[in-house]
This record gives sequence, C-alpha cells and structure tokens, in this order.
Amino acid sequence: MSFVVEMNGAQNNGINGNSVHHVSVRTHVSVNPAKLKSHRQRWNVRPSEMSKKTLNPIRAIVDGMKLTPNPEKPMIALSIGDPTVFGNMPTDDTVLQAVKEAIDSHKYNGYAPSVGYQKSREAVANFYSCPEAPLEDKDVILSSGCSQAIELAISVLCNPGDNILVPRPGFSLYKTLAVSMGIQVKHYNLLPEKSWEIDLQHLESLIDDKTACLIVNNPSNPCGSVFSREHQHKILSVASRNCIPILADEIYGDMVFPGCDFQPLAPLSSDVPILSCGGLAKRWLVPGWRMGWILIHDRNYIFGTGIREGLVKLSQRILGPCTVVQGALERILNDTPPEFYQGTISFLKSNSEICYSELSTVPGLNPVMPSGAMYIMAFEYPNFFRIVVTVPEEMMIEACIRIREFCARHYRPRSQDSHELDQ
Amino acid sequence: MSFVVEMNGAQNNGINGNSVHHVSVRTHVSVNPAKLKSHRQRWNVRPSEMSKKTLNPIRAIVDGMKLTPNPEKPMIALSIGDPTVFGNMPTDDTVLQAVKEAIDSHKYNGYAPSVGYQKSREAVANFYSCPEAPLEDKDVILSSGCSQAIELAISVLCNPGDNILVPRPGFSLYKTLAVSMGIQVKHYNLLPEKSWEIDLQHLESLIDDKTACLIVNNPSNPCGSVFSREHQHKILSVASRNCIPILADEIYGDMVFPGCDFQPLAPLSSDVPILSCGGLAKRWLVPGWRMGWILIHDRNYIFGTGIREGLVKLSQRILGPCTVVQGALERILNDTPPEFYQGTISFLKSNSEICYSELSTVPGLNPVMPSGAMYIMAFEYPNFFRIVVTVPEEMMIEACIRIREFCARHYRPRSQDSHELDQ
Ligand SMILES: Cc1ncc(COP(=O)(O)O)c(C=O)c1O
Ligand SMILES: Cc1ncc(COP(=O)(O)O)c(C=O)c1O
Repeated sequence: MSFVVEMNGAQNNGINGNSVHHVSVRTHVSVNPAKLKSHRQRWNVRPSEMSKKTLNPIRAIVDGMKLTPNPEKPMIALSIGDPTVFGNMPTDDTVLQAVKEAIDSHKYNGYAPSVGYQKSREAVANFYSCPEAPLEDKDVILSSGCSQAIELAISVLCNPGDNILVPRPGFSLYKTLAVSMGIQVKHYNLLPEKSWEIDLQHLESLIDDKTACLIVNNPSNPCGSVFSREHQHKILSVASRNCIPILADEIYGDMVFPGCDFQPLAPLSSDVPILSCGGLAKRWLVPGWRMGWILIHDRNYIFGTGIREGLVKLSQRILGPCTVVQGALERILNDTPPEFYQGTISFLKSNSEICYSELSTVPGLNPVMPSGAMYIMAFEYPNFFRIVVTVPEEMMIEACIRIREFCARHYRPRSQDSHELDQ
Repeated sequence: MSFVVEMNGAQNNGINGNSVHHVSVRTHVSVNPAKLKSHRQRWNVRPSEMSKKTLNPIRAIVDGMKLTPNPEKPMIALSIGDPTVFGNMPTDDTVLQAVKEAIDSHKYNGYAPSVGYQKSREAVANFYSCPEAPLEDKDVILSSGCSQAIELAISVLCNPGDNILVPRPGFSLYKTLAVSMGIQVKHYNLLPEKSWEIDLQHLESLIDDKTACLIVNNPSNPCGSVFSREHQHKILSVASRNCIPILADEIYGDMVFPGCDFQPLAPLSSDVPILSCGGLAKRWLVPGWRMGWILIHDRNYIFGTGIREGLVKLSQRILGPCTVVQGALERILNDTPPEFYQGTISFLKSNSEICYSELSTVPGLNPVMPSGAMYIMAFEYPNFFRIVVTVPEEMMIEACIRIREFCARHYRPRSQDSHELDQ
C-alpha cells in the first residue's frame, strides 16, 4: 500500500479513528498502515508496577510453602491465623444451618446491591449499634472479608503520596495494600513492657500534613493485647488533636478472655471519624467465607457524604461478598448461642496459659500473656515470633516442647553491647 | 514547654521519631511539641482521587434507583443482567446441592490459598481444557466474580498512562476499572450491520506503543452477538501483529442459541497470550455468589512467570472467593445436567425471538436478533438501548407492548442532516 505522507512530528493519538485520513500530502513513501504509528514490534508483556509492589509476606510464604514431611515429627502449623485448620474449632451449627437455609430459600442467588443487601447491613448495624455510637444500615458496607474492608477504607481515605500510621509489630496487610497504592507506611511502636500499648509520643511524632489515616488494631494481631478504655481515649486525643481519621481494625472484637473488657473505639469519641473494619472470619470461625464489613462512624459529619459515596463507588468494582452468606448474616449474628463464643474464648485462654507457662521458663524466650485474639508473642528483643494458639491442646504442648528443645540447642545469650532495637 | 529552635525551612519528614531532637539552637520560642511539624489544624477528610474516578454507571443507577410504583403498571426491569430477579430462571438443583454438601463436609470454612483451592482450580482447568489450549490447575486463578477477574487482569497488564482497547457498545466495567487506575480507554467500534463484528481497521488504528491490552467480549454484552471463527482469527492477527495481549471476557461462553457455535478465543491462537475471564454468574445463574476465574493461556511463554506471579500477588490482597462455593465447584461443573443449560438457552432464544419480532415493526426501532447471551440491542443510531431477555414470557410481551406505545407517542423521524454517529 502506498501513501503520500507528511512527517510533522505531531503524533496522532488515534481516538479519531484510522489515522490514515489525517496525514497530509508532501512526499511519497511506501508504508503498511499498521506501521504508520509507533507500535510494539515484538512481544514485551511485563507485570504492572502495582502488581510488583503488592507483597503479602504471610500469603507469599504460606501459599508457596513446600514441606518435606518429617515422619517422626508431623508438622504443627503455628503460623497462620486460621482457627479451622486442625478441626478442633468448628464453627457453630447455627452458622452452617443459616447458610443452608439461605440456599434453600432460593432468594440469595441474584446480584445484591454492591454494598450488600439492606437487610444484611441492617443486621450488622443492629448487632454493633450502641447508644453512644448508633448505627443504621446506611452506615454499613459489606465486603469480601475484613481484608477488602481494609482495602476499601485505605482506598477511600488515601491518595498516592499520603502516608498512613500502622502498628509495629502489626498485621502485614496494611503495608501490603498501602505500598501497592503508592501510600507511604509509617510504623508506630507498640510497647511490650506496657502490655503492647501504643507509644503515643512516637505515634504523634510521625504525623505530618500528608498523614491520611491512623490504623488501630485492637485486639491485636500479633500481640493478643487488648487496650484499656483509658489508653483508647489517649489514642483518640492524638487523632483528634491532629485531625486524623482512624481505621479501627476490630476483627478480633469481643474475642477477649474473661476478666478483660473489649471496648470498641467509636463509642469513646464524638468527633474523630472512624471506619471500623470487622467480619465473620475470627469470632464465627469461618475465615474462608470472605464476609467482612465496614462500620462508618461519623457523628460529627466529618466524613460527610464524600467518604460514604466514595466507599459505595469503590464497592461497585467487584460487587460485594457472596450473597448466600449475606442471606445468612442476620441469623448468624442473632442466633449463634453465647455458649459458642464462650467455648472459643475459654479454649483460647487455656491454650494461651499452657503456652505462656511452658515458654516462660525457656532461656531466650520472654512470652507476654495475651488478653484476647488468638496469638501469643514470644521474643527477646530484637527478634520475636508469633504463636497461633488455636491448635489442639496436645499439639500446643508438643509444640512448646519442640520450641524448648530448639532453644536449648541454639540459644546464645546476647552480649551487652548489641541491645539496639530492630528497625 | 519551651525550646530553642532554628527555623531552617527544611521540613522534618518525621520518620526518625520525635523531631524535637533534631532542631538546632538559634532563637528562643515557646512551642507545643505537636506543633513543631506541620500538621492538620482542622478536619479535612476528602474521598481519594481514585474513589472519585471510580464510576460504575450501571450500579450507580441500579443501586440508587428510587421508584414510585405505578399501580397500573408494575415495573418490568429490563435493565440489569441478573437472570434471577423474576424467579423464572432458577439455577439447577445440582448447583444448590453441591454448596450444601460443601457446607456439610465442614471442609471449606478455613482460608483457601488466595488463588483458590488446588482441587477447585483443577476442576475449572479440566472443564475448559482442550487439546489446542490445554489447561492445568496452575493456569487458573479463582476470583470474586468475573468482575474481580477483569480487575486482576487489567491490574496486572497495565500501568497508569497505558491504554486499553474496549468495545463500543460494550460492558461498562472495563472503563470503570481502567479509568480508576489511571489507564486510558480507547473505544473500538462494533458494526451493527455486520452482526456486531469488530471494525478491525478502526481497532488497529487505535493501537500505539502505550496499548497494554485488548479486551474482547464474546458472546457480547450488550449485543448478544457471537463471533465466527474467521472473525476471531482476524482479531488474533491484529493482536499478534501488534504484540498486544488479550483479555477475553467469555462470561457468556456457551450461552449461544442452537445452530450457532461458541468458539473460545485461546484455542485459535498459538502465540497471542490471553487471559480468559469467566465465572458461574451467567451460565449457572448464580451471579450473587461471586465466583469467577481467569484462565491463563500462554503457550508461547510470553506472559512468562512475571504475569503469573503478578496475578498471584494481586489475589493476595483480598484472599479469593468464598470457600463454600469453591468447595462446590467441582460438582457444579461436572454434574450439572446438560438439560439445564439447554433449558436456559431455549428460553433465552424464544424470548429473544418474541422481543425481536415485536420490536421489528415499531417505527423508530431497529432490533438486531442476537445469537447468544441474554440481551437484544434495539436502536436507531445514534441512540440505542439494551433489553435483557431473561424476564418471564408474559412480561417480555407486555414490555414490548409498552415500548411500542411509548415509541408511538414519542417517535419523530430524524431529519436527513443529523446522521453523525454518537461519540
Ligand atoms: C488484624 C487482622 N485484620 C484483618 C484480617 C483479615 O480478615 P479476613 O480474613 O476477614 O479478610 C486478619 C486476618 O488474619 C487480621 O489478623
Ligand atoms: C460482559 C460481562 N463481563 C463480566 C460481568 C461480571 O460478571 P460477575 O457478576 O461474575 O462479576 C458481566 C456482568 O454482567 C458482564 O456482562
């Protein structure tokens, strides 16, 4: 094919259709129309920057783990917060029945609104509403697990170049998500010697005019700690003084040991806008079902309609969580017997006590007795590790024995001059 | 508190902890340590740019719709691709039983790998594998609906500033997702007079060195068209010649009327790398369940490990679709009886024929008989509209009567000089 073309440097952007019609007459060249504009001459398909920046260290390890079994020592997985792996912590039968009823009703197979069915959101709102922080259906966004709740919350609050404040030690997903979105992560310290309270001075020192969100995780993964009311008031003061909204990750809410009191953050504040993230995963022991939610607390109208509408829009990208679980939500929340929750908690407490007392006497370890969640931290600075306490009791004991043996073989007391903290 | 400070203009970025220690001596001022660095003095929480750029026109309308019922004319919703709304198109009992069995097995409550259980991925691979385009479990990524499959595919292939090629008319989610990620959308035309085939010249003219992906949707929403083998070969030639990977949205795969043959794209090419997106939503009539997948076709090793690993990493953000549906997948795919699929198709065909013949004689309308999917396009350029043909037959007929009446009242033949196409 041959055309008369002027090379005038201006590149055709191609939106007006076939560029052939837009070139003007000057010199005579032979040309293939596909060659008229710059295009790839050979394959070069590379993963996007965002995908390269998305690193979930836990899943990267766990999903990619290839183990050569030791016939003498069957593996005891203490690494992942999945209470279901050993079969010793089944969910309640009510929870399973509720989903089967939802299936039998034939009412939950179609698309729900992308933020979730109104009735399901109402059920969540009623479950968590309290006089100091009332909730209605419009204050609830259902999501694909607490993970997506966190993703939505970070996505709506932060722009690339902003920063967020996350706990250290803390759940890794905050960083995974933020870094992938070009958001800077600043870690504030938790203080093991103060039952893992936040180092508030350190926290406040990190705030600058690019700080878009403070993430507070209580009860804590990995610390198993539960903040007192007083400490939460102080956290809220920092947020209020600096005008920073809070993402409260309360997925372990109410999973606290007897004698300890879980206090959700939102009812303690009347000004700080809070997105509280939660879900069925932990308390109802069905993490695979991917049912999470955001509770929007904004009693002083600081989020306004902007953040609410932003969350709705973002939820329209993948259209909400599985409808049969949504259909079961009202029954799950209202009809699961208290004994189920109590049973879970007393098991976790008992296993924590076993683990704590076993490891307390191991040279080189320094466990902190948890008050809730499903974890115990055992460390001697600067190294620490997290133990998941959901395994059956015999395994918990056996695991502690193995850890003791390992430490006995490998522990070398540190010299005085190497006491600096891990960054 | 009082400090001696030098105002030296350099802003402390705050990562080194409390900035008080970093200021140097010059003049004496009274200062609150929290005021030492710039921080917000009043609340200013705004939705992120990304959330503002996320606009899903369908969901925005449907989720926000407030209707005043007309007692004489109960609403007939022809607007949304949800085959379940009228109850006339239930899924097969096998599909429901499979999920109930998955629940009863107690095996599918924990976390699955974020790309999905190996067995469930294997079931999808076996279902879609063919000699020309073999698939194994490692070639399948499970996702939260086909929507998330599309999101993952675009996310892994494109960077901000790249462009993607999408059909016009076409499914709106492609643009919703791309625009929110800063990816430019270029629309290629479909040709109604050629059964909605792609205008290949127009398509090729849009390609430039920033083109990261070509989206091909077959069978088509909203056209109900099904591409011939020959046409698909030509599409592949364009992609091959220009080295552009393809996202094949084949969610309506196999939903084609008797006499017409659906041909998946991947088996027709041995070089073009293809991410084929699908799911349970349409063919199995359970869109609310949010079960989708990506089939990775890369027989010439152009995606290589980079794209595969990118997809795995991206899937770790929200950890895959609901596990009870995953647990049911093998049975759903293998045991759903052929009669179920046939029943769906013959109903869609019959309703399409009714709708087509009713509207063919309406002045101002010009329907195109579909060959598959669940839609019929009725238009006189530049305006067109899509009708969903999943409603019960009586309603389909009643809807056509209402449309005829409406057109009779409002139709004004266009003047000769206003024939330009809608941009
Ligand atoms: C603190 C914390 N937040 C959120 C999540 C994610 O929960 P989901 O499985 O509902 O996405 C986890 C899971 O381990 C967690 O530990
Ligand atoms: C062409 C097309 N692709 C993808 C989807 C999304 O499917 P899902 O509901 O599985 O997310 C739809 C839904 O209508 C569609 O029409």
